[in-house]
Amino acid sequence: MSTPEKAVVLLSGGMDSATCLAIARASGHDCHALSFRYGQRHAAELNAAREIAVALGACEHRVLSLDLASLGGSALTDRRIPVPEDSGAGGIPVTYVPARNTIFLAFALGLAEVVGARYIYAGVNAVDYSGYPDCRPEYIAAFQALAKLATKQAVEGQAIEIVTPLIHLSKAEIVRRGIELGVDYARTVSCYQADAEGRACGRCDACRLRAAGFAAAGVADPTRYRAAD
Amino acid sequence: MSTPEKAVVLLSGGMDSATCLAIARASGHDCHALSFRYGQRHAAELNAAREIAVALGACEHRVLSLDLASLGGSALTDRRIPVPEDSGAGGIPVTYVPARNTIFLAFALGLAEVVGARYIYAGVNAVDYSGYPDCRPEYIAAFQALAKLATKQAVEGQAIEIVTPLIHLSKAEIVRRGIELGVDYARTVSCYQADAEGRACGRCDACRLRAAGFAAAGVADPTRYRAAD
Repeated sequence: MSTPEKAVVLLSGGMDSATCLAIARASGHDCHALSFRYGQRHAAELNAAREIAVALGACEHRVLSLDLASLGGSALTDRRIPVPEDSGAGGIPVTYVPARNTIFLAFALGLAEVVGARYIYAGVNAVDYSGYPDCRPEYIAAFQALAKLATKQAVEGQAIEIVTPLIHLSKAEIVRRGIELGVDYARTVSCYQADAEGRACGRCDACRLRAAGFAAAGVADPTRYRAAD
Repeated sequence: MSTPEKAVVLLSGGMDSATCLAIARASGHDCHALSFRYGQRHAAELNAAREIAVALGACEHRVLSLDLASLGGSALTDRRIPVPEDSGAGGIPVTYVPARNTIFLAFALGLAEVVGARYIYAGVNAVDYSGYPDCRPEYIAAFQALAKLATKQAVEGQAIEIVTPLIHLSKAEIVRRGIELGVDYARTVSCYQADAEGRACGRCDACRLRAAGFAAAGVADPTRYRAAD
């Protein structure tokens, strides 16, 4: 048997990244899960990420602290901007965090370089993607081109590959794939304003997309919702 | 008179980034200087950056804290790896910090998006570049391509431009250009192992490149060196 290849997996603690980790594990990789404490309102995500990393057999889980809140400009990190409960279909919502995926992928690249990983898995999704520019396939392709030039390994002939297995899946397809692979979605937290115990509001964009995904997949929604205010 | 356009300027506190800020100011931009506290050994750089930002008239100076030390893998952030005093010409030196420029540029992109800057200035240099993969022109071109897709402004038709005015200059040319623009190089700190007062060792790669630059420019070296051990 050959040695498993290493992968860095971006793990937010939400349903997409948990499914992505399950897929990376099912592909036989030793997975280095990577999460960020970035001043997000929904820090319950990080507790979820910790549990998911263990449940899905990641070989390590690193949580890096980032000062995204000092940049400002997003409802997810700036408490002065309210989280919208129905941003509708138009434009880029205020929950967009400036350059977030670029920053996260940049750190993943650094970790991949340090641990000698050949792959970076990211659970970005272009179907139900909430209108974020850095979830589009052309954005990921551009980051892949950058990764081919950015690292010591790349210079020495071994480029790091960005893998986005969910990019063309609907939320319902993500749910079905995750359930096949044993993801316990009750542990995952998607809500933009989850409480300290990870209970969801049921009203923000992330909650709506998630609930619609379970409904479309014909799966009972295991999300823990908090009592209505 | 038209309103000055805004630029984010990566400012490490070394001679290249100080020169880069001077060039951005001379181009008429309102400059948002951006530095990082990333576990570098040479934290005296940040004091230098603060002084330089004021001296060159930046409109603000932000210092973001990053957890690069948790990634490990570099002599600049990992105290178990000694800083080499003559790494010679071959290969990528241990002072290379994995994905550092990708991470720094990603944060600059986020700040540019938040403040509405049209330009990001970075003092990368491909001539005396110490063999870092992320200082090469093709790397910068790839980041430019990414920036065209990554942000809200880009989606709305206004891409952020990455400007690297030093990329093809020798250290001597950088020194001459900076002196023309009034950069006080005595304030800048380049040494990988500067002491708390910013005094240089005179022996590491960064010191050697810097001293050679002043010599080649025919300019007295204003660097404050510490007494030999």
